[in-house]
Formats: sequence, C-alpha cells, structure tokens
Amino acid sequence: MQQKTFFTPGPAHLYPSFETHLQQALREQIGSISHRSKQFKAIYQFTYEQLKTLLSIPDNFAVLFTGSATEIWERILQSCVEKESFHLVNGSFSKRFYEFAGELGKKANKLEMPFGKGFDLAQVTIPAGAELVCLTHNETSSGVTMPVADMHTLKQKYTDKLFAVDMVSSAPYPDLNFQLIDCAFFSVQKGFGMPAGLGVWIVNDKCLQKSELLKQKGLTVGTYHSLPSLWSKFKTFETPATPNVVGIYLLGKIAEDMNKKGIAAIRQEAEQKATMLYTYLKQSENVKAFVQNPDHQSPTVVVADVAGGSTDLIQKLTQTGNVVGSGYGSYKEKQIRIANFPAVTIEQTQRLIDELKRLEK
Amino acid sequence: MQQKTFFTPGPAHLYPSFETHLQQALREQIGSISHRSKQFKAIYQFTYEQLKTLLSIPDNFAVLFTGSATEIWERILQSCVEKESFHLVNGSFSKRFYEFAGELGKKANKLEMPFGKGFDLAQVTIPAGAELVCLTHNETSSGVTMPVADMHTLKQKYTDKLFAVDMVSSAPYPDLNFQLIDCAFFSVQKGFGMPAGLGVWIVNDKCLQKSELLKQKGLTVGTYHSLPSLWSKFKTFETPATPNVVGIYLLGKIAEDMNKKGIAAIRQEAEQKATMLYTYLKQSENVKAFVQNPDHQSPTVVVADVAGGSTDLIQKLTQTGNVVGSGYGSYKEKQIRIANFPAVTIEQTQRLIDELKRLEK
Repeated sequence: MQQKTFFTPGPAHLYPSFETHLQQALREQIGSISHRSKQFKAIYQFTYEQLKTLLSIPDNFAVLFTGSATEIWERILQSCVEKESFHLVNGSFSKRFYEFAGELGKKANKLEMPFGKGFDLAQVTIPAGAELVCLTHNETSSGVTMPVADMHTLKQKYTDKLFAVDMVSSAPYPDLNFQLIDCAFFSVQKGFGMPAGLGVWIVNDKCLQKSELLKQKGLTVGTYHSLPSLWSKFKTFETPATPNVVGIYLLGKIAEDMNKKGIAAIRQEAEQKATMLYTYLKQSENVKAFVQNPDHQSPTVVVADVAGGSTDLIQKLTQTGNVVGSGYGSYKEKQIRIANFPAVTIEQTQRLIDELKRLEK
Repeated sequence: MQQKTFFTPGPAHLYPSFETHLQQALREQIGSISHRSKQFKAIYQFTYEQLKTLLSIPDNFAVLFTGSATEIWERILQSCVEKESFHLVNGSFSKRFYEFAGELGKKANKLEMPFGKGFDLAQVTIPAGAELVCLTHNETSSGVTMPVADMHTLKQKYTDKLFAVDMVSSAPYPDLNFQLIDCAFFSVQKGFGMPAGLGVWIVNDKCLQKSELLKQKGLTVGTYHSLPSLWSKFKTFETPATPNVVGIYLLGKIAEDMNKKGIAAIRQEAEQKATMLYTYLKQSENVKAFVQNPDHQSPTVVVADVAGGSTDLIQKLTQTGNVVGSGYGSYKEKQIRIANFPAVTIEQTQRLIDELKRLEK
C-alpha cells in the first residue's frame, strides 16, 4: 500500500519516529502496565520534563493529561471561572470555546472578527468582570494566527486576569513566555504527529488557586478532572483516572526527539516551509491565500481559496499521495487547508507544491 | 525481553490479536485519517455493529465514545440527573461514582455494604426521589459481583427509574438484558485487552429524553460530551470532538474476533478459568478467597487474602513472568487481585496456578 503524506490539520501525518517508539512500547508491554506503578510515574515524569525543556515551562506549572483539547476548554472554564469569561473569536474553534462558557452557565463575553481576519490590539477592550481571557494562537478553521507578542502585550495590560492560550494546531511552534500566560493547551494529533486521544494542559499555580477559591465558596468545579484533582495527582506523577498511558509514553519520546533536534531548528524549519507555501500561493493563479494580513497568516495551518472550488483539487492531490484538508464548515468546498507540522519535511512540502503547480497547468 | 502475562485488573494483558490489528492500522495510516471522513464513519459504524452483536444491544441504544469510563460516571450524572441519584456502594469504585454525584451538586443516596460484601435484594429500598440507580456489576477493588439477575429484578421493581450499570471490569462477560438496563459502560483496558484511553457508553433513548428534558428546563447538562451532543453526532457515526480514532478501530476489530469465537464460548471460558482460580483458593493454605458468598464472587476479578502479606508473593510471581495486581487501597499489601479477562488463556491461567502452588511449598 502506497503511504500517503498527510497535510491535514489534525489528525495529521505521524512523526517520523512515531512507529519506532510504538514498536518499542509493544516490546515493553507499556499497554499493560498499571497506571499506579513506579514505571508509569517515571513515564509521566519523563514526558513532563521533555515538554518542560521543549516549551520552556517554568517550575510553577503543572502538565496535565485529558482525553482531548476540547475537554480542556471545558475544564478551564469549570475550574477557573466563577461568573465571567472573555474570548477573542475569529473562527469556528474559538467560537466553540466561547459557546462552552455559556453552556456551563457562565457569562461569556467576546470580541468577534469576521472569518479570516485577525485582531488589532487597539480594538481589544476586556470587560472588568472577566476573570479569564481565552485566546486562540491558531484558528484551525480559518488559518488566522494571533502573534505571540500580541498575547504577551495584552496580558501586560490586564495583569489581574488569567490568560488561557489554545495552541491546539500550532504547538510546539509558538514561543510563549509562560511568565505572561497562565495556561496553554494542545492535543497530540496536530504538531506532535501522534494519533488522537490525548490532550495536554500546561497550567500554573494561579489557575489552581482560583479553582481552590471557587471550591471553598461551595461552587462545582468538576469531579475527577477538576484542576485541583488533576494537580494533586500530578504532584506524584499520577492521574485521577486511568489515562492514555501509551499516548503519554509516546509523547515523551517524540518531545525528546524534538529536543534533540532543538526547538529553534523546528521553529526555523516551520517558518521555511510556511514561506515556501505562501510564496507559491502568491504566484498561483487559482490557489490564493485566504488570510490577507501577513501578520495574521498562520505558519502552521495555511488556508487557501481555490478558484472554481476545492473538491476536484483535493481529489487529484490525493491521487498523487498528498492529502490536504478541505475548507472548514461552509468553506468545505471552496478552500483547502495545508497543515505545516514538524512531521512533514521540507522535501515533502516541496513535492506538494510541485504537484499543485503541475495540476494548475 | 521476556514477555510477561498480565493478570492485573486493568490495564491488563493485551488481546492476542491486538498487535496484528495495530500493525494493520499503521499500514492503513488510521492514525492520520480525518475524524470527519467517510473512512472514520465506516470505522465507527463497524465498531458499533460488532458491539451490538457481541452484547445484544437493541436498536434504541447508541454506542458513544469518551476518554475513559470515569468520564462516563460524570457524563451520566450531568446528563440524566436533575436532583437525585441512588448508588449501591460496596467498594472504592462504586463509592467514587457516588461521590461524583455530590461533587456535581446532586443529592446522592446510597446503600453501602462493607468491603468484600455484596447486596441482598431484600435489603435494597430505593428512595422515591431517585431518578437514576447506579449499579456496579463488578467492584474492581474488592472482587464482589452483583449478579445480573439481581439487577434485572431490581429494575422490574422500579421501572420508572433509569438504571446505569458499571461493567468496567467485567464486559463483555455479563449477559445484560438491555430491555431492563438503560445504560451500561466500560473502558477498553480491561476485558477487551487494549491499552487505556477509550470509554464506551451504551445508552438508550430514555436517557436521551431525560437529558433533553433537563436542557429544556435550562439546566446545564455539560458541553461537547453531554448526552444530546454525543447522540446527535452518533446518528451519522461522528463524534463531537476528535476521538481516539485508532482505539475505536482496534475495539471494532477485537469485538469482531470475539464474535467469531462467539460470546457464549467467551463466557464459558471465563467461567472455566474462574472455577480453576477459586478451586485453587479453596485448597490453598495461604491464599484464600476474600469474598465469602459464592454468589458474589466475581468471575472476572478474583481477590484473595494472602497470609503474612501479598508484597513478597507479587514479587516472586513477577519473577516467573506472571503479573498479578496488588490489593486496592488499604488492602494493597494484604491481598492480590487476579484478573480473568478474555485475553488470558486457560493454559496461562493454569501456569499462574502452578506457580502459586510452587511458591507455597
């Protein structure tokens, strides 16, 4: 069977070393070990330490595991918001995060931009009552990024509020300064090149304190996956329920490989591939970048309008072994989405561009 | 590396065909496919149909996927209880399910038995206000089972209440009559012989109706994993968030293998192995069955007291390649727990018994 290259924005192409580590996990019977064993605690600690190095996570942060990043939206809102949250919304996923707050009975505030547009900091005013500010580094639906510097600037203006960053489809690319971010989260089936089934929540002691305060007030902050419950188990590298043990093992191994390569090299390569893709889109007659403002063009999920519709192009690309994503929601048949994650090489990206050029003729 | 046989009550020994199916999943790049693709929908449908056959699930039930069975405790209580639940508690897991109700702000009622004891139906009176009755088929902590016939009898006495059955550490063994059960759930790292990271919720339209009623009243029933949200996606074999796609694929393949063998044969084999284990415990001087009432002795998790403590015995067994579980909680160093799941053969069970006998000398 011909192996395809997946440029889909998640689930995505598996990291080159993924299969080797999975075979090792089978040999070591990691799928059968107890999640209360010393062996599991050592795996959790290893993965924590590798992510800490990779993403420059300070000591006052925990790294917690859930079933998905979607679950983390819910857990943050349950654990850290008594009454009010604020959301920068500019696509389907940031909107869903906002909607969760309402579904949980919170007052959800938002500043919403049209699909494909980013935020001008001068226009952002956060209501005094908002306890938590929810930002999306990379809108997977529209391919709009919020520059990390803008996030940091915003936090410096609103130091009393907790800041949460959705980096689901960009981690480990964004160079967040965790002195200016209170929590961030991702799922492993995007930039880490693993199968879906594991969410990762990087969260500081301020969030924990907020959650404990809500508990003291007699409010419901959740059950086993409330922040206090997750954190208390994290202290001994355990989890409140049986987690995706093999996923945690594999994430540690892949983060270790990324550390060996170096985060600077990974980020530089991401930028090089992004430049290749956006340069092609500038030259192309039929396939054009959807996001106009270069500052807001995502380096990790490149979205393009396809003249005459994208369905045919996606099919023809798939026949060449290159799988790109369709547009999101109502853009399904109008756009393509090309993920630019670490698992895909410069050479594979060039082959995709060559095929795109060939199909234009 | 010598491969061990895991008799641990979850994570447990992997099903014999697990690795073959995993290698096939790698070849087919299942870890990279979109969870919105036709290919994923076909996988979900296949797994649903295999489980439907295996467990005789009627048409008015959905089969839904979560991160764990622990998550399902929370989702059932959020989605199906407005004010009051009732729990039969006789160990650490049934107690935790009960505690979740309180943490979610519900009035939780219970009938609690001492650790190691089961329930006498004549003593069970369910309060009129209880909307949901939570039963645990197999208490993983103590090795006590509640006979399926007792569950059915109880439901026939309280037909107006919803009945939920935790079959985490017994599925697919219990022959539930889903005409007399409203929902049941398990996680895959026990009787299905897979790595942890996937919960399975089998739930009927009555539970859905209850949940929709609560929503209409303006109550919070959760967000993406509320019952209405999960069910609406199930109708087209989709999920509200990116699920553990590879896990769902593997579960379908293993359920298919179980169907080929036949559920009757699997249950008969479980009983044969359970008889072997309890017969040994009767004869042994040092290792004795913890649960005294034969009707309440679990066929799938056999718990035994070890004279002088279990730590040494567990270590010596591990050296022979046989891994058994320690006791749960405060029984950690006093007891052993031997899982009797379909992944472990009669021969492997006999070898464990032989080693236990050898170590007694």
